[in-house]
Amino acid sequence: MLGPSSNATGPLHGVRVLDISRILSGPFCTMLLADLGAEVVKVEQPMTGDPARHLGPQVGGDAAYFMSVNRGKKSITLNIFSEEGQRLLCALVPHFDVLVENYVPGMMARLGLGYDRVKELNPRLVYASISGFGQDGTYAHRPALDIIVQAMGGMMSVTGEQGGPPLRPGASLGDSVAGMFVGMAIVSALFDRERSSHGQHIDISMLDCQVTMMENAFSRYFATGEVPGPLGSRHPAAAPFQAFRASDGYFVVAMLTDREDTWLRFCNAVGVPELGKDHRFLDNLSRMNNYDVLNAILQKTFLEKPVAFWLEALSGANLSCGPVNDIAAVASDPQVLHRGMVATIPHKRLGTWRVANTPFRLSHGASGPAGPSPDLGEHTEEVLGGLLRMSEDEISRLRKAGVL
Amino acid sequence: MLGPSSNATGPLHGVRVLDISRILSGPFCTMLLADLGAEVVKVEQPMTGDPARHLGPQVGGDAAYFMSVNRGKKSITLNIFSEEGQRLLCALVPHFDVLVENYVPGMMARLGLGYDRVKELNPRLVYASISGFGQDGTYAHRPALDIIVQAMGGMMSVTGEQGGPPLRPGASLGDSVAGMFVGMAIVSALFDRERSSHGQHIDISMLDCQVTMMENAFSRYFATGEVPGPLGSRHPAAAPFQAFRASDGYFVVAMLTDREDTWLRFCNAVGVPELGKDHRFLDNLSRMNNYDVLNAILQKTFLEKPVAFWLEALSGANLSCGPVNDIAAVASDPQVLHRGMVATIPHKRLGTWRVANTPFRLSHGASGPAGPSPDLGEHTEEVLGGLLRMSEDEISRLRKAGVL
Repeated sequence: MLGPSSNATGPLHGVRVLDISRILSGPFCTMLLADLGAEVVKVEQPMTGDPARHLGPQVGGDAAYFMSVNRGKKSITLNIFSEEGQRLLCALVPHFDVLVENYVPGMMARLGLGYDRVKELNPRLVYASISGFGQDGTYAHRPALDIIVQAMGGMMSVTGEQGGPPLRPGASLGDSVAGMFVGMAIVSALFDRERSSHGQHIDISMLDCQVTMMENAFSRYFATGEVPGPLGSRHPAAAPFQAFRASDGYFVVAMLTDREDTWLRFCNAVGVPELGKDHRFLDNLSRMNNYDVLNAILQKTFLEKPVAFWLEALSGANLSCGPVNDIAAVASDPQVLHRGMVATIPHKRLGTWRVANTPFRLSHGASGPAGPSPDLGEHTEEVLGGLLRMSEDEISRLRKAGVL
Repeated sequence: MLGPSSNATGPLHGVRVLDISRILSGPFCTMLLADLGAEVVKVEQPMTGDPARHLGPQVGGDAAYFMSVNRGKKSITLNIFSEEGQRLLCALVPHFDVLVENYVPGMMARLGLGYDRVKELNPRLVYASISGFGQDGTYAHRPALDIIVQAMGGMMSVTGEQGGPPLRPGASLGDSVAGMFVGMAIVSALFDRERSSHGQHIDISMLDCQVTMMENAFSRYFATGEVPGPLGSRHPAAAPFQAFRASDGYFVVAMLTDREDTWLRFCNAVGVPELGKDHRFLDNLSRMNNYDVLNAILQKTFLEKPVAFWLEALSGANLSCGPVNDIAAVASDPQVLHRGMVATIPHKRLGTWRVANTPFRLSHGASGPAGPSPDLGEHTEEVLGGLLRMSEDEISRLRKAGVL
């Protein structure tokens, strides 16, 4: 049994989630739910489990990636491709508030576990399906991994050097952004259920989520007909609003204003007061029109001194700026640590393990990792014994039969 | 008055949101709430309004960007920097379920509108604060714009060409991801309120949200001590899993497996069967170890034919692939259109206007844009007259006094 969890007072305490999803989009969603206090029971295939258990790098016998995304969850094994496994899953359904799955559309129905069937067993269930392209339409049955929807949704077309090839941002936004949206949809359906008493089916497409995330690019395109391309680190409509190279690394500065006094403050802070009087740069539009000249002058200046020098000068003038941190710098940043964003979870073999926390800070009730990631099937007895009153003998028989 | 909205049956119908936020992080959050059925009243400074109204490009007298993020909301003018404006805001608070603000920490308290004050007026209020770095800690009072937290949270350090400078992904993830997280936190607090009857204060830091989004990079770093860098379009642990250039554009292919039959299928589909027997490439680890050789062979091959040819060959072999779409291609993609992801809202001068939709699809109740973006102060009379029983004379007096 898990001990009392650190987030047992979170806003979703008492909510039970049956999680049949694998890898990232679904597990990221249920990580958010667990960090907010929900009890998440992960349903995994016997022997193999969630494929994320086998992705590298491994440490202390577990995949680092799996430990992070599955902290604070319980794990039961259940072969949902067997008839007896399907029967057991149906028996579990009345005990849960939420079900999350990310199989290719049609698969759950073929297993006798589609929403139309399952809602008969629990009309209050919130049943969330995540797929690459949605439950309907001509692409519905195509498999999709993260990079596919980042490519098809436009994100890669606007990421990269100006005139260069499309790049993938260095995070799995295809999966994680879908996880965030389905998480919000699930909690909205739970809120609705408090008033209506009915559950519902949620159909989230990873490609749809990319389109929502790209709203600004679509707005610009609909307004001008111009197709946005990659711009390096630049903002499409403001300058200076980008990364610059200093003598020892990179930093960013962001100016989103037409105010001449802000520009003067910037020029004085950087030690180029003559630019503050140069008509080519006095307002944002002029700076955009003369971007190449301005960029060359500033870049040459910034190369002369280290990042710390420029950040002190710019913050001293109350201008928005910051270092381009690598992951090691983020993990030791005093504010990141002060906010508890590097959380520690217990680990059987390692003692403790560090994970990136979730950003939820609520005045009533704790949030964050409730415990370690589970070993495969660690909670099979607890969950099946507790919820279904299944005996040890029966569990042992089912395990031998490959159902558990 | 707005007519009956298209999402009046959404899961958040009946929820009233007082939105004092500006630009993107807060307004993106309240767009999600509005698309799920909430009634959002945007509080704007008289004369100037949300600064997003003035960002380019403009069309039909409105900023395209503003129209998209603020569709389906109401707008009232209220000078919260005046004592009378603060008094009126306090009078509105008991009529609302949620308040959203994104001022620099400390500002709301200085205006007499901090959570400690406002909760006395409405203990059931869910009061959400979004800031660059959170409400506490040494960075709390620093201003932050999108690129600052994308730089400080590590995203830019892993985005770009291998060995090249850090790049900013082509979307405002610093703002929009914070908007998604605060949206989920708000709905969780509303759900909790149905059971506990109390509201609460939510404190979301944009930098914290970046850390959560970068969880995979942190896992890798904590496991290996190696600091992840930019990898172009490549996956850090799988190959081929990247963008390739074809004769007429780019496409992506994603293979996340050690199965030799999948690799053989790939080699045959691409017309390089000899690679299927080459010991340098038989499993994923070998392909990673011999990445440069493999990449050169594949890239040379793919340059010989157009994108459509390769996508047909690869999908025919049931391999995960897709085009790198630019924004124009996404906006006309049949699946994107089938899913209703390009939504149309009414516009007084343009007739209609297109916006990227939200991805929420729920079986009970509609979701999506409920109407146009509001003109500045369009609903001042409706809201102040309706909720505060304020007379037209009084509204006219306050308007002349610069309060409205």
